[in-house]
Amino acid sequence: MAIAYPHYLSSKSARKSVEPPLVVSTQSSSSARSPVNNLTQDELKKIAAYKAVEFVQSGMVLGLGTGSTAKHAVDRIAELMKLGKLKNIVGIPTSNMTRDQAVSLGIPLSDLDTHPIIDMAIDGADEVDPDMNLVKGRGGSLLREKMVETASKKFIVIVDESKLVNHIGGSGLAMPVEIVPFCWKFTLKRLEMLFMEAGCIGKLRMFPGTENPFVTDNGNYIIDLYFKKDIGDLKAASDAILRLAGVVEHGMFLDMATTLIVAGELGVTVRNKLT
Amino acid sequence: MAIAYPHYLSSKSARKSVEPPLVVSTQSSSSARSPVNNLTQDELKKIAAYKAVEFVQSGMVLGLGTGSTAKHAVDRIAELMKLGKLKNIVGIPTSNMTRDQAVSLGIPLSDLDTHPIIDMAIDGADEVDPDMNLVKGRGGSLLREKMVETASKKFIVIVDESKLVNHIGGSGLAMPVEIVPFCWKFTLKRLEMLFMEAGCIGKLRMFPGTENPFVTDNGNYIIDLYFKKDIGDLKAASDAILRLAGVVEHGMFLDMATTLIVAGELGVTVRNKLT
Repeated sequence: MAIAYPHYLSSKSARKSVEPPLVVSTQSSSSARSPVNNLTQDELKKIAAYKAVEFVQSGMVLGLGTGSTAKHAVDRIAELMKLGKLKNIVGIPTSNMTRDQAVSLGIPLSDLDTHPIIDMAIDGADEVDPDMNLVKGRGGSLLREKMVETASKKFIVIVDESKLVNHIGGSGLAMPVEIVPFCWKFTLKRLEMLFMEAGCIGKLRMFPGTENPFVTDNGNYIIDLYFKKDIGDLKAASDAILRLAGVVEHGMFLDMATTLIVAGELGVTVRNKLT
Repeated sequence: MAIAYPHYLSSKSARKSVEPPLVVSTQSSSSARSPVNNLTQDELKKIAAYKAVEFVQSGMVLGLGTGSTAKHAVDRIAELMKLGKLKNIVGIPTSNMTRDQAVSLGIPLSDLDTHPIIDMAIDGADEVDPDMNLVKGRGGSLLREKMVETASKKFIVIVDESKLVNHIGGSGLAMPVEIVPFCWKFTLKRLEMLFMEAGCIGKLRMFPGTENPFVTDNGNYIIDLYFKKDIGDLKAASDAILRLAGVVEHGMFLDMATTLIVAGELGVTVRNKLT
């Protein structure tokens, strides 16, 4: 069941959102109340992020995601801390960018070495399939995100409805793979060969507006894979990619999300993974 | 069948070794002719290396291994090139150290981007099990070695007999895993957990004589894993390690070696992989 959310967009009513979530459905739904039109994509991202922060409780160790949607969640957590509605929060950032944001907002930080078990992580995703498998990493932080989110007891994924796809790769946008810089052209070709039947094309990610390769927080490169067709068995695909020497990690997050929050024109939907 | 090799140790007779190998057995053997005692481990390594270079032919693209045994092979290749007995060799080094050695010896070099298919690779190993599965990487170059040797049509492994083990990890020495430096303690713990039943202990490799972590050619760390018991299914173990976010590569080279050359006190044995 979806619920409408105009109140999330006013800062006054937003303060109410530390109350328990109104509706938690265990199935996705397209039903809605009070549809609200003309929201920008960023407003939808903010709605999903604010909804996720309703699940945060004082004393939690929190995985802090990276990207335009997760940024809203980090802002909101800091806001509630300043209001005294959240206390004793420890954040585990998934990128240098998020670390900098959290530091500037006064959120106490730690790391996985000190907190190998995380209560809850909140992060965006680039694609979500019907089984709540994700593509992440178009922002370039897939490895640290995967490390943190694997260590999280609960992993809430927050997206606007444009991120929902029928199958991984279905958006026609990139599925990123982090690789070592050494002989990257060789690794790119091997990745393409792996998914030849899906019409896979790989591209080295560049820093926008430059001729320099994008470099991750870990000093690696990113190959963006584009698929023309469904790649089929995702776990088999995952293992095949990871078996290539030269690959560090890929952007498919399989069977990791425990809750999915989708904000769309018709409302916000909260869906828990059936276990 | 093993053959004795005192002639490999004289530079005069060594020149003859571009002739076809005398004996290539398809099974390992402990039989021997003319046992020669009192050879040092380094002399045995040299014997295995020289034997491997007998398989090299002019015009080949060669993967050049790293470590004390592979170093002898690179020396020998350069020697035969200078004698005019090998021509048009292109070397693909597996480490910066081997690159420097090859450059100093005048071996023309290239890389995997230019030569994605390699005719033959020659490299040492730290352990060899009865199925010719290997442990490599105690020298720290496991990732580049695996990239190059995966791309090789033939992969000749050269060892002295002390490297033969009943099962991977059986020497009691390290099975190395290359990991990203980010939250390495967390990754170390997860690796230990993976092999808890085998009594696994992990240690961060340090630069000898310092308190600084060893850093690979790719800017990563090495966790050395020590097993008290056999870890069982190696392919399952490999996939489990590679699935850990934070792991870049491990030192088990499974089903990759095509020829094994073992030098021991009783002779040299050449064994081809049964296909």
